[in-house]
Amino acid sequence: MPKLFLTTQDPKEYLDLIHQANLPDLEIFTEFNPACDIVFGDTGRIKKTLSDLPHLKWVQTTSAGVERLMDSSLRRDYTLTNARNVFGESMSEYVFGYMLFFKKRIRPRVLAQRAKQWDNEDGGVLRGKTLGLIGVGSIGAHIAMTAKHFRMNVWGYTRGSETSKHVDRYFHAQSPLSQRERAEGEGENKDLTTFASGLDYLVVVLPKTDGTNSIVNAEVLDALPPHALLINVGRGNAVDESALVEALNQNKIAGAVLDVTEPEPLPEDHLFWTTPNLFLTFHTSALSYPEDMVSVFVENYKLYIEGKPLKHQVDFERGY
Amino acid sequence: MPKLFLTTQDPKEYLDLIHQANLPDLEIFTEFNPACDIVFGDTGRIKKTLSDLPHLKWVQTTSAGVERLMDSSLRRDYTLTNARNVFGESMSEYVFGYMLFFKKRIRPRVLAQRAKQWDNEDGGVLRGKTLGLIGVGSIGAHIAMTAKHFRMNVWGYTRGSETSKHVDRYFHAQSPLSQRERAEGEGENKDLTTFASGLDYLVVVLPKTDGTNSIVNAEVLDALPPHALLINVGRGNAVDESALVEALNQNKIAGAVLDVTEPEPLPEDHLFWTTPNLFLTFHTSALSYPEDMVSVFVENYKLYIEGKPLKHQVDFERGY
Repeated sequence: MPKLFLTTQDPKEYLDLIHQANLPDLEIFTEFNPACDIVFGDTGRIKKTLSDLPHLKWVQTTSAGVERLMDSSLRRDYTLTNARNVFGESMSEYVFGYMLFFKKRIRPRVLAQRAKQWDNEDGGVLRGKTLGLIGVGSIGAHIAMTAKHFRMNVWGYTRGSETSKHVDRYFHAQSPLSQRERAEGEGENKDLTTFASGLDYLVVVLPKTDGTNSIVNAEVLDALPPHALLINVGRGNAVDESALVEALNQNKIAGAVLDVTEPEPLPEDHLFWTTPNLFLTFHTSALSYPEDMVSVFVENYKLYIEGKPLKHQVDFERGY
Repeated sequence: MPKLFLTTQDPKEYLDLIHQANLPDLEIFTEFNPACDIVFGDTGRIKKTLSDLPHLKWVQTTSAGVERLMDSSLRRDYTLTNARNVFGESMSEYVFGYMLFFKKRIRPRVLAQRAKQWDNEDGGVLRGKTLGLIGVGSIGAHIAMTAKHFRMNVWGYTRGSETSKHVDRYFHAQSPLSQRERAEGEGENKDLTTFASGLDYLVVVLPKTDGTNSIVNAEVLDALPPHALLINVGRGNAVDESALVEALNQNKIAGAVLDVTEPEPLPEDHLFWTTPNLFLTFHTSALSYPEDMVSVFVENYKLYIEGKPLKHQVDFERGY
């Protein structure tokens, strides 16, 4: 009989929902039990017990990001599945909430009201503006769909795949430059700066991997138009911190909304707290709601007991 | 040959766009000319010359609201068409901008950041919440469509029509109470308070008519749940001012966003400027963009010269 170790911050609601699903043949433990072959929970908790489960076959995470389980010192002899197709809606609400917060001039109008000024300056509309996504997985694709609802142009920058029909134009990461190209002074990633230069909004939806470190660097921030807004809902490592602080201090871009930072929480003396036009949102853009997570688990559990391939498998080499 | 009097604040852009449309047989005047049979412009300007146009046959406004031309002292011997199907997108951006501003806790997070507090309290999602529209014309229908994109429930309160497929449940204005009903203490409009009591968001998209005065009164505000947000993008007359100020002062509702007020601009001593959780946006929710307006005019002009019925005709009796 499959044995599940359920390890989440508040297992009660998860437990009730799993019971309601009436899964066949499943024994559930909310305390650690080395006999378990399945683990379902958050990556921080999972990481701690990973080496103590001799029968482990499958881990289902409650997050999209799984970088905590990618450490090369950790075992990889099991199937790892993450949460996909569940954060897109929340992320879209968040991204469009902040884009409209800027576009509709909500802050300037609050200040005008406080000063009793009839401020009817037009902020314009999203329609016709260009949103660029770095990373077009299931979350990026959902944001692209919402952008199309608002009749925006959508550009996508990806490693190679072109999976969303809502992206009008794709740009691709180039392979690393050859020594000759480097010697001849070729830019590190011309496509990425070309991409950035055409955007009104840049939304970063990348997993944390070695390849995504500081992908939004000074060169990319310089390429963005001065009215552009940067939103990072992926992982903090994707944005070069000091380049961003400088770009905002010098008004090279209009603003930045960071849901993710390194570390989280930020230390009190971190510059992000006080950088002008930088908005922190403390990793809240898409929370893991138990109903959503349990439905992902239940779907995969049914495949698991039938010996079929699970959905949303993580590739340990890619890191996502 | 048809003669057009074009009377807008800045006629240059309108003029260029009309010329680009290459309309047959049209003579255009940007200064008043009593020989004109067509007037295209904003209602305030149109009203001033209305009685001096002996050949007038058709007036096309650049706004949705036409209450300035409804005065019973004014002539009604012409076809009046207003601007429809052009404001829905802007209005949706505005309405969802403010709904998400509240839902995503943008203001509390700004204050938390200022205090260097890691505020990761969840504000929840729009998905599954209920938006109620008072007035479901072309603007209301567009807002309903956006609400469905975000997987909300949509309720509509109308006089009688049920034209939007994106509205899940309709409520209808009752006919005036009989003397018997009134004597027996029947509520003035039970359906409206039933409607209000089930909402998370109440969006008012009504034209200004005698029938819409103070439709959002103390009874309706009392019926709304305390977490509800009121947004008025129609006309200021629809909301009972003192009832709203009291409801906000007593936290009976969570907030109000008013794009429209009476009068506009508001006098400096008006309570709306300083009422807590009341946001003023100074009639900016949907501006009249010349491209949109000229395309409405061009479409109707082609019908006009063919002698066919024009689109978006205003009913002088209803007032919209």
